[in-house]
Amino acid sequence: MFTITPIEGGVCAPEGFYADGVSAGLKPEGKKDLAFIYSETLCNIKAIFTKNRFQAAPIQHFKKESIESSNFVLINAKNANAMTGEKGVEDIDAILSHAKALFKEIENPVMSSTGVIGVPLPKEKILKGIESFDLLKKSPDAAAEAIMTTDSYSKQVAFKVTLQSGDSFTIGAMAKGAGMINPAMATMLCFITTDAAVDADEMGAILKECAERTFNAISVDGDTSTNDTVMLLSNGKSAIYNREAFIFALEKAMHELALKIVADGEGATKCVAFKVTGAANDEEAATAAKALTNSLLVKTALYGEDPNWGRIASTIGASGVECDPKSLTITFGNVTVYKKGEILFDEEQEAKAAKVMKKSSFSIHCDLGVAEGSFTAYGCDLGYEYVKINADYRT
Amino acid sequence: MFTITPIEGGVCAPEGFYADGVSAGLKPEGKKDLAFIYSETLCNIKAIFTKNRFQAAPIQHFKKESIESSNFVLINAKNANAMTGEKGVEDIDAILSHAKALFKEIENPVMSSTGVIGVPLPKEKILKGIESFDLLKKSPDAAAEAIMTTDSYSKQVAFKVTLQSGDSFTIGAMAKGAGMINPAMATMLCFITTDAAVDADEMGAILKECAERTFNAISVDGDTSTNDTVMLLSNGKSAIYNREAFIFALEKAMHELALKIVADGEGATKCVAFKVTGAANDEEAATAAKALTNSLLVKTALYGEDPNWGRIASTIGASGVECDPKSLTITFGNVTVYKKGEILFDEEQEAKAAKVMKKSSFSIHCDLGVAEGSFTAYGCDLGYEYVKINADYRT
Repeated sequence: MFTITPIEGGVCAPEGFYADGVSAGLKPEGKKDLAFIYSETLCNIKAIFTKNRFQAAPIQHFKKESIESSNFVLINAKNANAMTGEKGVEDIDAILSHAKALFKEIENPVMSSTGVIGVPLPKEKILKGIESFDLLKKSPDAAAEAIMTTDSYSKQVAFKVTLQSGDSFTIGAMAKGAGMINPAMATMLCFITTDAAVDADEMGAILKECAERTFNAISVDGDTSTNDTVMLLSNGKSAIYNREAFIFALEKAMHELALKIVADGEGATKCVAFKVTGAANDEEAATAAKALTNSLLVKTALYGEDPNWGRIASTIGASGVECDPKSLTITFGNVTVYKKGEILFDEEQEAKAAKVMKKSSFSIHCDLGVAEGSFTAYGCDLGYEYVKINADYRT
Repeated sequence: MFTITPIEGGVCAPEGFYADGVSAGLKPEGKKDLAFIYSETLCNIKAIFTKNRFQAAPIQHFKKESIESSNFVLINAKNANAMTGEKGVEDIDAILSHAKALFKEIENPVMSSTGVIGVPLPKEKILKGIESFDLLKKSPDAAAEAIMTTDSYSKQVAFKVTLQSGDSFTIGAMAKGAGMINPAMATMLCFITTDAAVDADEMGAILKECAERTFNAISVDGDTSTNDTVMLLSNGKSAIYNREAFIFALEKAMHELALKIVADGEGATKCVAFKVTGAANDEEAATAAKALTNSLLVKTALYGEDPNWGRIASTIGASGVECDPKSLTITFGNVTVYKKGEILFDEEQEAKAAKVMKKSSFSIHCDLGVAEGSFTAYGCDLGYEYVKINADYRT
């Protein structure tokens, strides 16, 4: 038993963590674009990275240094430092050496980047930016703002977890991401801090497990980028750990941030939970659910608030999972429009289903009726704004 | 040696074929929506169908009847007769029985449908429509128009193939398709007629081979529908056959129709050939090329005429094929922007690449530099019109 309470403070909520965001001149008009997270003691650190074959320089650097502990994470927006070759990794070495020279307390610093692919990192600007850092600032809002790219709002959560004994630990997180978000985690960054005394050996496995049901279950546009990163830093300051409570709180933090990312999908007006049940197994359920989040025809129908269940059925059929029209049931919210071969889509049902779709958040449930596999994936609609944002992104 | 000459006449160009399109009241405003193709002698017939698990009733009917020869194909637009259960197949039986009763010369009739999924076929309207048919009409334009859904123009080709001996045969074809077009052939119908005396045993294999490089190499929105069909009817009237010449002409006809479909992609303003070379093998080249045609970020960049080569690289990296930034080369038209790890993207090159992208048709060449595999896939941009068309399709 434990209680979990939302609190303020983002990544600075756990004891001993500091963060700030400054303007280094990468974004126009003096917007914040360079952030750091600092812990007063060394953290165990685990990260999950993109499966893209062209992993960006920060990921290459992290792997090259075999980072297992750190007390400083530097994050820049506007430039992904991807497809930049050895020069990209050398730039990181230079930048982090500079940070260590300026702040003697920094150990094993790591870097993370997001933004345009294929443009050399504006190293000088970042070096200058670091010089303005005050490591003991607690400005989580500024940090969360600095890592944004096409995001329309910053994304943070924090929870205090109190065990039955009265002992407590805290978990905080921030993320960025709005488009190019794929079931395989894309163009998103997420940094999670905790003062829980997490067992270092199982930290990686726990992070991965929670990612499967959160960041790996969302899609904005089906693309997978070069920089995607979910990073967990635990400094153990609370000296408290309860495995079950920690996993619950971590998944909750990641789940809330994942939904914030979907809701902020470029130009999105709706966040939809695609719940697939009755699949041959959980993997097939995930395949079908993710296919629904990625179908352009489904996404545009969501935008048009059109309960076009035929496109839902067609997408499931095209996803390659075991299914049969005679056992399939499709339900918008609580309005069933197709049940095991029977079309229940008269004018009344259509009006009811259309009403469900007018909400900014609702679920579409597809029961394949084959076996017991289930998975819920989260997606959004695709409207004019998505095209506008992405046709003009670089310019 | 042979010569191949474009001619008029679409599906009626080969000897002994007739076609027409009428209005049966499925589309509004008296638009044509019901077409037939009739051959005065029995044809060998082969078809390739969608891989969607929820194959529509017309496909189920074709398979149930084990159709190998026919002289009559009935095609309706506006209703896909998909997800309509046994009733959907029974409706086809009733409709085709009616056609046979009206026209004694009809043998083994088949049906094909396209349009909205999940709505019962308006059988009575189609029965009435058939009554207005004149089987000996040669109105290929009317037939090609009747099978359109969101197409903005009808799609036909015909070629006369003359062998060195002076003997000749003819091939004609019509297709529909504008959106929901996937590398795995979607929401498209294509009917090909020929008077060549094609060997019935190898007709299916030839059709499949040609489809791989044509209809299976195009994408508008990555979706795969329930009705997709490519059908080849050969009545042998010319008594002439030359395997090499026939394959060449068939692939040419299918290739031209495939490009017409891409160019008519819903809201598309550009048709782009994504040429991938240097892949580990042809399959990997196809995987990468098709991923490029399906990436929303690439498609919106095409629309924005933005030579955002980072998105091209990222999509290749995400496609899972063997590749390395150090061996990759990316070229827009004849402007190389990234060459084996080196970014050649200065202002001058960017301006040149942007100029290439202003064309309505151009190529993007990605040499993976791994081995010798190659494939070219054809795609289009995604703009506001696509969203508009698909948000409002049913209403």
